[in-house]
Amino acid sequence: MSVAIDSRLYLVTDRSRLDGRDFLGVVEDAIRGGVTMLQLREKDCSSREFYELGLALRELTRRYRVPFWINDRLDIALAVGADGLHIGQSDLPAAVAKKLLPPGMLLGVSAKTVEQAIAAEQAGADCLGSGAVYPTTTKVITRTLALDELRRIKAAVKIPVVAIGGITADNLAPLMACGIDGVAVVSAIMASPQPGAAARTILAAVDRHRQF
Amino acid sequence: MSVAIDSRLYLVTDRSRLDGRDFLGVVEDAIRGGVTMLQLREKDCSSREFYELGLALRELTRRYRVPFWINDRLDIALAVGADGLHIGQSDLPAAVAKKLLPPGMLLGVSAKTVEQAIAAEQAGADCLGSGAVYPTTTKVITRTLALDELRRIKAAVKIPVVAIGGITADNLAPLMACGIDGVAVVSAIMASPQPGAAARTILAAVDRHRQF
Ligand code: NI
Repeated sequence: MSVAIDSRLYLVTDRSRLDGRDFLGVVEDAIRGGVTMLQLREKDCSSREFYELGLALRELTRRYRVPFWINDRLDIALAVGADGLHIGQSDLPAAVAKKLLPPGMLLGVSAKTVEQAIAAEQAGADCLGSGAVYPTTTKVITRTLALDELRRIKAAVKIPVVAIGGITADNLAPLMACGIDGVAVVSAIMASPQPGAAARTILAAVDRHRQF
Repeated sequence: MSVAIDSRLYLVTDRSRLDGRDFLGVVEDAIRGGVTMLQLREKDCSSREFYELGLALRELTRRYRVPFWINDRLDIALAVGADGLHIGQSDLPAAVAKKLLPPGMLLGVSAKTVEQAIAAEQAGADCLGSGAVYPTTTKVITRTLALDELRRIKAAVKIPVVAIGGITADNLAPLMACGIDGVAVVSAIMASPQPGAAARTILAAVDRHRQF
């Protein structure tokens, strides 16, 4: 695990889970509960709206000294001064993104296979997100990632690996047993009536089950 | 009109108008017919797909020496080495985009009012797109731009102004009479069974009706 990134509890946003609650309020509560990295992922909004949400979360995460990532949109990451850009396999190719990012801005890549993981690391990725490890309602996925593949991915790269997909405090033990560095969570925090308490509980479970 | 930009006939893409025909084939035919600038605008595709379309059109436009613009996505514009980025009022703010663009990459901005036009020019825009001047089926629009407002926009700025929205060879005369520099066209070319001939006809009409 890199000393630079504390990837134990990575909150990925989803405004559709708010059920009327205030977005920034939920995120701030979660950060106070122990979120160690935050990613803004919003698919159905204009570039302007994405940018404005990004500015607001940039301010919030700077205040709490939490690394801030933008999903997919390298331009928005640049525009708001994010700490990192996270891209999936249907976003810009990792090597292209790496070339466009300023030195020091981190690159995260989604990797569902060992091959994707190795390619991402070779392209300059600083962190991997692997999943979906469990079925999730967050996005349409074709298949879940077997624990064996997660273990192989972690063993194949030097950079931190975070699992994603339907993760809760109660089901993360077998994931952490694969040697991964942390978990990325959407619904377990965003849809919780008590985001801060949810974050605290998940982080405690991660720490209890980390292999190093 | 800037000497740098020949904005007489600006083709804006829309793959939904192809009706099964080959995208690159239609665009190349249109370019051969006289398109002077090309903008890739595709709303419903992944970043990867947008990037790959951009690469293909970059190659094509370089071959024909036609300035190539990307709609909305500054990151894709950088990634494919476009000549320009075109942004609307719900994309990144113009001043933010200008700061992120490398020197020499052009900035186009959509302006529906004199106020937006002046703000865009002050933010560093190199070209304005104003409309919709006529009703269009291309995107949902709230209102059309009156000819008087188009005339005022052109008079208020030094940069080229191109009208957009439902424009054909048959209805562009009153637009050109406002002193504008060219027309941006989607359906009149993309949906035409003969894109090259359509471009030739529209460009001839533009030239016939230009005020300078
Ligand atoms: Ni346990």
